[in-house]
Amino acid sequence: MKALDIKKIYRETDMYLGQEVTIQGWIRTLRDSKNFGFIEVNDGSFFKNIQVVFDTELPNFKEVAKLAISTAITVKGDLVKTEGAKQPFEIKAKEIIVEAESLSDFPLQKKRHSMEYLRTIAHLRPRSNAFSAVFRVRSLAAYAIHKFYQDRGFIYVHTPIITGSDAEGAGEMFRVTTLDLHNVPKTEDGKIDVKQDFFEKETNLTVSGQLEAEIFALSHKNVYTFGPTFRAENSNTARHAAEFWMIEPEIAFADLQDNMELAEDMVKYIISYVMENAPEEMEFFNSFIDKGLIERLNHVATSDFEKVTYTDAIDILQKSGHKFEYSVEWGMDLQTEHERYLTEQVFKKPVFVTNYPKDIKAFYMRLNDDGKTVAAMDLLVPGIGEIVGGSQREERLENIEQRMKAMNLNLDEYWWYLELRKYGGVKHAGFGLGFERMIMYLTGMSNIRDVIAFPRTVGTAEF
Amino acid sequence: MKALDIKKIYRETDMYLGQEVTIQGWIRTLRDSKNFGFIEVNDGSFFKNIQVVFDTELPNFKEVAKLAISTAITVKGDLVKTEGAKQPFEIKAKEIIVEAESLSDFPLQKKRHSMEYLRTIAHLRPRSNAFSAVFRVRSLAAYAIHKFYQDRGFIYVHTPIITGSDAEGAGEMFRVTTLDLHNVPKTEDGKIDVKQDFFEKETNLTVSGQLEAEIFALSHKNVYTFGPTFRAENSNTARHAAEFWMIEPEIAFADLQDNMELAEDMVKYIISYVMENAPEEMEFFNSFIDKGLIERLNHVATSDFEKVTYTDAIDILQKSGHKFEYSVEWGMDLQTEHERYLTEQVFKKPVFVTNYPKDIKAFYMRLNDDGKTVAAMDLLVPGIGEIVGGSQREERLENIEQRMKAMNLNLDEYWWYLELRKYGGVKHAGFGLGFERMIMYLTGMSNIRDVIAFPRTVGTAEF
Repeated sequence: MKALDIKKIYRETDMYLGQEVTIQGWIRTLRDSKNFGFIEVNDGSFFKNIQVVFDTELPNFKEVAKLAISTAITVKGDLVKTEGAKQPFEIKAKEIIVEAESLSDFPLQKKRHSMEYLRTIAHLRPRSNAFSAVFRVRSLAAYAIHKFYQDRGFIYVHTPIITGSDAEGAGEMFRVTTLDLHNVPKTEDGKIDVKQDFFEKETNLTVSGQLEAEIFALSHKNVYTFGPTFRAENSNTARHAAEFWMIEPEIAFADLQDNMELAEDMVKYIISYVMENAPEEMEFFNSFIDKGLIERLNHVATSDFEKVTYTDAIDILQKSGHKFEYSVEWGMDLQTEHERYLTEQVFKKPVFVTNYPKDIKAFYMRLNDDGKTVAAMDLLVPGIGEIVGGSQREERLENIEQRMKAMNLNLDEYWWYLELRKYGGVKHAGFGLGFERMIMYLTGMSNIRDVIAFPRTVGTAEF
Repeated sequence: MKALDIKKIYRETDMYLGQEVTIQGWIRTLRDSKNFGFIEVNDGSFFKNIQVVFDTELPNFKEVAKLAISTAITVKGDLVKTEGAKQPFEIKAKEIIVEAESLSDFPLQKKRHSMEYLRTIAHLRPRSNAFSAVFRVRSLAAYAIHKFYQDRGFIYVHTPIITGSDAEGAGEMFRVTTLDLHNVPKTEDGKIDVKQDFFEKETNLTVSGQLEAEIFALSHKNVYTFGPTFRAENSNTARHAAEFWMIEPEIAFADLQDNMELAEDMVKYIISYVMENAPEEMEFFNSFIDKGLIERLNHVATSDFEKVTYTDAIDILQKSGHKFEYSVEWGMDLQTEHERYLTEQVFKKPVFVTNYPKDIKAFYMRLNDDGKTVAAMDLLVPGIGEIVGGSQREERLENIEQRMKAMNLNLDEYWWYLELRKYGGVKHAGFGLGFERMIMYLTGMSNIRDVIAFPRTVGTAEF
């Protein structure tokens, strides 16, 4: 007995109306009276439940009428129109098989629960409306990203998670080891004897796949990564997690303009794909999580993104007359308040800020002719601020060596990265999109812990 | 000046023949004589190079004639037919711009290099024919997997990489820590003071996302994971890596039969997708890496997979008269020699071996009515042996608790996993596909180090 996805019944209703159908799912609600009852069944394939009517013609009517929320059932019956009712159709049950009962103390009853509480039952919260929707959208957005890049001929690269260099420089790292922590082996001069560790050297969890993605951009031209990255930063905020997924495209024969074009196309594509493929979820988020969400996303999807240099942005902020918590001066990093003011108040649409002072940006960003700024770009969007950060990479060997020395980096660690600049190391560019940041933006969820199935944050690694 | 992907020119030749085209890529070979020369250019979008003819009409003829292998160039010229030549068309250059020169000592010259040597230059080997092809196939196979599941309405779940439980039990784990290894903090009774670690508990790198995937199968019905997993095992073989990617679908309202059907469909889909989308690469592998590859893959893609119980398989092996290194008796785990004998000699096609003795399988596999075997399945394929392993999961609370106690597992660690069995924990099943194993199978590459961009193995974590 092959069951239909409930989604299929909603999407291709005409095909099934008047037919016998079989569905399988979990009871979301059950109301019964003496001779009949209603069950709302959800199978996770779709945002909406399907209503099942059952009556005393069922041999197991009494058993069914007493079933607890979250019981797994198979329902066979006719799909019929329901004139004038809230739902367009329902299933008149001919048979209901109890596949797996649920205890009556199922923690997700109809009443609203706090987000904090739901995090403590991360093994059950995917069965709630909100989280069921969040994780469907997350899946769709991930696929949209793959589809976007693959349709354009980009190669998907798996960059390493365990890294032998502490050279990525993008943040605090987690150490990966098989040494016995009870008794860490030491060398004669008292250092950790890393030769006894699994990889015979110090290893950490990656903070970015960019440097390795550059290798592939210089062989396959257009590439992207999509994988987990890590920060061991003690920041207990609603926007930081220790483990998160990142997308990092890298394109060769390309400059900052090409990079911005790609980022704009990608962001618009993800939004359009999700709005098109999950309209019910988006409607729900718009109504219950973040009023104005759909309008904001539509606006982003249809705007031409603005471009402004960092220097002009500073000027605009200084002349705005607005009182910021952090005062504005050239050379500073923009704070979220500045970013949001620019995109929400000044431009009222997404805006790329380009050409930041070199001293606040990473060593690999390409030095501009002014000698003071680098070819960096941050994409700021209304409602959140920065969502994408990238740059054209410094492809000139002499320049990058000079810059690395000035920043006291150990050039030997980067031997292969530097060598790329010797053998046809053409101009190239790339950016990073924090996947969870994007999901928060798409759903209106305000805490990163609520768009990750099992979030890892300071002091928390449950499930 | 927008350049065309070389792939586009090969795939849509008619559209561009006789037209002026612009391409960008790296020089693979260059031959010159007094008044003209030929350049083979590759841009990584396609297996084949495109031939560029240039002559003294180019203002920079002399410069171009001296360019080193791997120099990055932009070529503008007319795409013309080449009657009787090896290649069907070439570009008659009107302009060649040198984008980035290469030093003349580029390590990948035309001669063949050993795989071992190429691993030491993993930053350059993607520019060789073989590795350029491997990593395009890897990207296509990854996308095929996403497409396969998404087209069927499966939800993609990101299960955690850092795990707080040492409970997965599938192998040796890497510890993840921010403790100072020079001076590991201890409690009064001499234990490691894990409260001072980042997550305030012991954490490791995941060996499988299955247990968490089960959570989502019981909310979203059909789900899959696709992410990195880790084994800290000291096995220095051609088939083991410490870091590899795994695909783990998990389906609810499903038993072992459904599970086998899904695995068969998936394997066939991946093979067909790659053969269809990378015929030139597959031709190359078939000719230069593994003769017979295409025939073998075609055979798998078109066979109905066989099914045999473990007990029958043991019987077949015992009666075969074949001399195995490990002698065959009921209760033993099958070795690769047995697996390959079954699939290559006995069935001559892919075969699922089912219902293994419970004592050689994991605690979460569903106990069969015989009380001795569990509803496990391994998929064996000619040329490699096991490629997929899975099972129907034990959904009965009492059974699984009993089994866990018998295996001395700490039930408290699994509180949430057990709780799934209380609230509509319907029958469900799933399997794992090692992604690198699949890529080896698709390409004929015989060492796992050569299908991973930057392999992590005992003693090696370079790049």
